[in-house]
Amino acid sequence: MPVNEPLPRRLLAEALGTGVLLATVVGSGIMAERLAGGNAAIALLGNTIPTSAILVVLILIFGPVSGAHFNPAVTAAFAVRREMSGGDTMLYVLAQIAGGLAGVWIAHAMFEMPLWQVSQHVRSGHAQWLSEAVATFGLLLTIFGCVARRPAAVAYAVGLYITAAYWFTASTSFANPAVTIGRALTDTFSGIAPAGVPGFVAAQLAGMALASAAARVLWPASS
Amino acid sequence: MPVNEPLPRRLLAEALGTGVLLATVVGSGIMAERLAGGNAAIALLGNTIPTSAILVVLILIFGPVSGAHFNPAVTAAFAVRREMSGGDTMLYVLAQIAGGLAGVWIAHAMFEMPLWQVSQHVRSGHAQWLSEAVATFGLLLTIFGCVARRPAAVAYAVGLYITAAYWFTASTSFANPAVTIGRALTDTFSGIAPAGVPGFVAAQLAGMALASAAARVLWPASS
Amino acid sequence: MPVNEPLPRRLLAEALGTGVLLATVVGSGIMAERLAGGNAAIALLGNTIPTSAILVVLILIFGPVSGAHFNPAVTAAFAVRREMSGGDTMLYVLAQIAGGLAGVWIAHAMFEMPLWQVSQHVRSGHAQWLSEAVATFGLLLTIFGCVARRPAAVAYAVGLYITAAYWFTASTSFANPAVTIGRALTDTFSGIAPAGVPGFVAAQLAGMALASAAARVLWPASS
Amino acid sequence: MPVNEPLPRRLLAEALGTGVLLATVVGSGIMAERLAGGNAAIALLGNTIPTSAILVVLILIFGPVSGAHFNPAVTAAFAVRREMSGGDTMLYVLAQIAGGLAGVWIAHAMFEMPLWQVSQHVRSGHAQWLSEAVATFGLLLTIFGCVARRPAAVAYAVGLYITAAYWFTASTSFANPAVTIGRALTDTFSGIAPAGVPGFVAAQLAGMALASAAARVLWPASS
Repeated sequence: MPVNEPLPRRLLAEALGTGVLLATVVGSGIMAERLAGGNAAIALLGNTIPTSAILVVLILIFGPVSGAHFNPAVTAAFAVRREMSGGDTMLYVLAQIAGGLAGVWIAHAMFEMPLWQVSQHVRSGHAQWLSEAVATFGLLLTIFGCVARRPAAVAYAVGLYITAAYWFTASTSFANPAVTIGRALTDTFSGIAPAGVPGFVAAQLAGMALASAAARVLWPASS
Repeated sequence: MPVNEPLPRRLLAEALGTGVLLATVVGSGIMAERLAGGNAAIALLGNTIPTSAILVVLILIFGPVSGAHFNPAVTAAFAVRREMSGGDTMLYVLAQIAGGLAGVWIAHAMFEMPLWQVSQHVRSGHAQWLSEAVATFGLLLTIFGCVARRPAAVAYAVGLYITAAYWFTASTSFANPAVTIGRALTDTFSGIAPAGVPGFVAAQLAGMALASAAARVLWPASS
Repeated sequence: MPVNEPLPRRLLAEALGTGVLLATVVGSGIMAERLAGGNAAIALLGNTIPTSAILVVLILIFGPVSGAHFNPAVTAAFAVRREMSGGDTMLYVLAQIAGGLAGVWIAHAMFEMPLWQVSQHVRSGHAQWLSEAVATFGLLLTIFGCVARRPAAVAYAVGLYITAAYWFTASTSFANPAVTIGRALTDTFSGIAPAGVPGFVAAQLAGMALASAAARVLWPASS
Repeated sequence: MPVNEPLPRRLLAEALGTGVLLATVVGSGIMAERLAGGNAAIALLGNTIPTSAILVVLILIFGPVSGAHFNPAVTAAFAVRREMSGGDTMLYVLAQIAGGLAGVWIAHAMFEMPLWQVSQHVRSGHAQWLSEAVATFGLLLTIFGCVARRPAAVAYAVGLYITAAYWFTASTSFANPAVTIGRALTDTFSGIAPAGVPGFVAAQLAGMALASAAARVLWPASS
């Protein structure tokens, strides 16, 4: 998905997109938990549907601007493929993290909660890490497969993939280091205690590496 | 989305579309609340899904006729871009408000309720206004981004955006002055007490202005 | 949507499609009610989502064969437009009703219920009739609008329209005389007592007539 | 859907795709049941939505590689049409079964359950078998109809079909021998006791045969 937009515009798109994504993840988590009357499946449904829906929208509108990564694991995967320079990669990741944090705070402001929060929701252990590796592996495979053969479908495919991954992994599929960092700073439904962040990010990068290898076999660039 | 249809046909499309939209917002709100047995998340799901679904349909069928605004904030945004004349803007807004009111009354009639109602549901305060500004900002960004680069996807993108925005904002995303006015006249699930209307509309217009500025940076007309 | 398939193949498509549609409406209604634990909104959701999903599929696969009406009101609307001959109209309607009845019985068989049932669920009165007229008006407008300007989207639009109409009308939107007749013969979630059928069908035809008139104004054939 | 990829790559796609499909069916079943608080309809919704979503994704990305069968009944149907050689058919089915088993075990690992399990959920009897025959008939008709006339829509159509079939059949629509075998080895929400497998598979193959015959009438190859 090569793009020829000026770098500042691309960074704005990455920051804004990741911001809206985190505002949606955190905001819909708050709304869903408040309304669900203690039924955790309904709360997760009220978190899954909005997150997947906004992903489709954000990829549709920002894809032609920045490639619509919103995810350091995605940006790193394109760097591994030498489709992003080292400098752009660094700036993309910074824009994603900064935008994500702003999104979390906007969600808190909309729901009249303290802006600064730290999650106490412990998410850790081998099963969670396996879940994150599997979730990110699948996400990257979805992106690589679409980029190779169905570029017009990538927005819908990513939204649908995340719909599934929220439910089939035990971690509800963070699959994104910028999202993981942002969610460390909300003590609401979608939060993760900061101590769990490094394990999640490492697992996500492992899943990304595995998907990059699989994609080279499944959709070789020359075909 | 320039259209070359005669003005009366365009106004009919705007009135009819906004009418069906309000009938859906209000009608599905009544149905969902009646059936949900007190679970507010299920009720909101039963309000979100139909509203988003009908938006896709209405934009698909009326887009080629009138541009399928159904929303004074959208019409005003196109006026700001000088893509709508002042006279057309005024008539569009009147058609939207009139159609929306008719839609509310049809919903009341279908559910055997008094046609004339005034909401007592207070929706006000800074968090609600921030929510409406954010919701409308996102809606307009969705529209501008699709119009610029993915015109065929606009109907699906708007439906998906509203799916998300119902849940990630604290106000459940009215994001539309005609909808806000219409919902003031129903004392059901989706209502808003009239005293809250001006604050909501002002916040919506602020979000629209911000989105117009952002869109000029993200998708400059010349590209 | 002119089609050039031999008539027997078209009738098979209409019968099979209406059969699968009714099996889905009735079968998912039984499943949803059995599982929903008394929450009527969840039951309706479990009836809405499958019905809308199967409609998209059936229109995608049978559209190129028979036009994918599955609905005497739709067939009659095309007859009014002189796009169906009188003889074909009659045969289409018979195939739809016969297929629909078979679908109801297959649903009963799958759920180990008596094949022959008569609904005792009274659905009648002005509000219900208004609901059916509105529901059918909207359905036909959706079809006419897509046929005129977005033929490739008709399957998705009809599925999404029915998603909305199940919730925004007080009758849960039968909007189809063959479906109404079929549902008279099931004493389950989706049934309608036979005495209510004539009123529903009359209201559906009134909604169809109104939509036909509106469509002539909104999407004149010459444009 | 003829594909010209090397056989090992096609087998990898079939194994990987069926693996992710089973991980999703089993994983989302575990998650949904754990969270649903005893409401079986909500649990089934939390199993249906992810399964359908992942099917769309898997068909989008693996369709151009292997045809994206993930289902011995689909592979057999193409063999019956002489679009698959006998040897390829055998290898596809083995890859699907092996991949499916791996997917079940990955789901168990993610949810910290014993990898090796045998279902005790008895699913048997004429109504269940009829359900499986109907479910597979409809699935194959969906695939044949799309392949004939709407190849670009096949991924969405299959996802939507399975959404419906989970609810309108009494068996929740396995419709796939590899999925049936995999689900025999999980004693969770989606399991089937091994004694029920042969009946399910036989019913699925009967539904496949009927659909193959119907497809020859509805979409003759020459048209």
